[in-house]
Amino acid sequence: MRGHLIGVGVGPGDPDLLTLKAVKALQSADVVGYFAKAGNVSHARTVAAAHFPAGAVELPLLYPVTTEIHRHDNAYRSAIGAFYDASAAAVAEHLMAGRTVAVLSEGDPLFYGSYMHIHVRLAGRFQTQVIPGVTGMSGCWSEAGAPIAQGDDVLMVLPGTLDEAELARRLAEADAAVIMKVGRNLPKIRRALAAAGRLDRAVYVERGTMADCALVPLAERAEEHAPYFAIVLVPGWERAA
Amino acid sequence: MRGHLIGVGVGPGDPDLLTLKAVKALQSADVVGYFAKAGNVSHARTVAAAHFPAGAVELPLLYPVTTEIHRHDNAYRSAIGAFYDASAAAVAEHLMAGRTVAVLSEGDPLFYGSYMHIHVRLAGRFQTQVIPGVTGMSGCWSEAGAPIAQGDDVLMVLPGTLDEAELARRLAEADAAVIMKVGRNLPKIRRALAAAGRLDRAVYVERGTMADCALVPLAERAEEHAPYFAIVLVPGWERAA
Repeated sequence: MRGHLIGVGVGPGDPDLLTLKAVKALQSADVVGYFAKAGNVSHARTVAAAHFPAGAVELPLLYPVTTEIHRHDNAYRSAIGAFYDASAAAVAEHLMAGRTVAVLSEGDPLFYGSYMHIHVRLAGRFQTQVIPGVTGMSGCWSEAGAPIAQGDDVLMVLPGTLDEAELARRLAEADAAVIMKVGRNLPKIRRALAAAGRLDRAVYVERGTMADCALVPLAERAEEHAPYFAIVLVPGWERAA
Repeated sequence: MRGHLIGVGVGPGDPDLLTLKAVKALQSADVVGYFAKAGNVSHARTVAAAHFPAGAVELPLLYPVTTEIHRHDNAYRSAIGAFYDASAAAVAEHLMAGRTVAVLSEGDPLFYGSYMHIHVRLAGRFQTQVIPGVTGMSGCWSEAGAPIAQGDDVLMVLPGTLDEAELARRLAEADAAVIMKVGRNLPKIRRALAAAGRLDRAVYVERGTMADCALVPLAERAEEHAPYFAIVLVPGWERAA
């Protein structure tokens, strides 16, 4: 009798943005897995913990420390690949014992989430269900009250890691854009937005949907430091007439 | 004493994909508004109605019949603009009387949703809150178990209404893509995917997250008709090694 794997999206941070389905899945779980950096709390766990059933086994999946290795380095890829293999094996052990394992994911599990590394390793072997969640970007534009896209708008989700010229070229072609992975890329993102003529519409959001959310037009933000999970929004739609 | 406007995302169709926050907002509402075509039921209402409080006033906002007018026609724009003005006025009347008005939106309110037409007309005049929801596209890729984007992937959300050459050009530049508004555009979308070398990865999804969901590799779907709200997914990420 094999167990059941559930990828559970916990939404952008406000615990009330869990879905009813996510709550039910957590209540049915024997084991709850979540990713975290060694020594840090798991943000997804904090958001969802109120719904863990009494006696659930927690399975923290702790990223190896890789700060000394560049992420395009083969050593990084190999360390991370081995970590995901080991994480999937730890989940599989519970599934083989017939347990229901819920693996948490901030936002939506299959949208830039770590859960998908477990999913691709196990979905072919075990009964698997994915419960979608509210994405971080939806949380941010809702907090900003900024209609992001309408009608025939093309929306692009762009990693802030792209090089400056490519970022500017893509921004010039997008009606609306969301720039993720801001962090140390912020000065470059600002220059690319200016080159594309979109800086005036850009909104900077930190910790969207959380009590300490920070939201400001990017052009008014002097500070050049930003956390990795900050987002820049370029709303694509303005009221016509 | 003025009322409070709440844009409520009800998610992609499964009533369990409402958030806890959406449920609480509905339970607090004096008035629940929703868009529908005249003579049709509102899909958002069907999904959320179990949570309407006893005695809530329902405010259906019924689209005018415009099937005889092309949507780029000025007559269409003017009929639709007048409809949104009248809808906002109907909501404002309740707000002026101090009532809490929840306006439903399928998916997420500020992501291609009709609610935003109310939002831009009233958010400056009344206290307004937007509750994000799970998008239709998240529902579809979760149902498909298809990791849509990871790492430095660029994700594009493209309307199927774009012309064939532009669609092909953009698809060739995207790591991952979601094509909305499929409907009668399906044969064109298929040709554009083939031209961009992406047809083999494309997945066709109808009624994602609903009990009668249809999900099939697009290359295996012979039928050239599709409903307007069908979605085509091009997952951007494959397991590396």
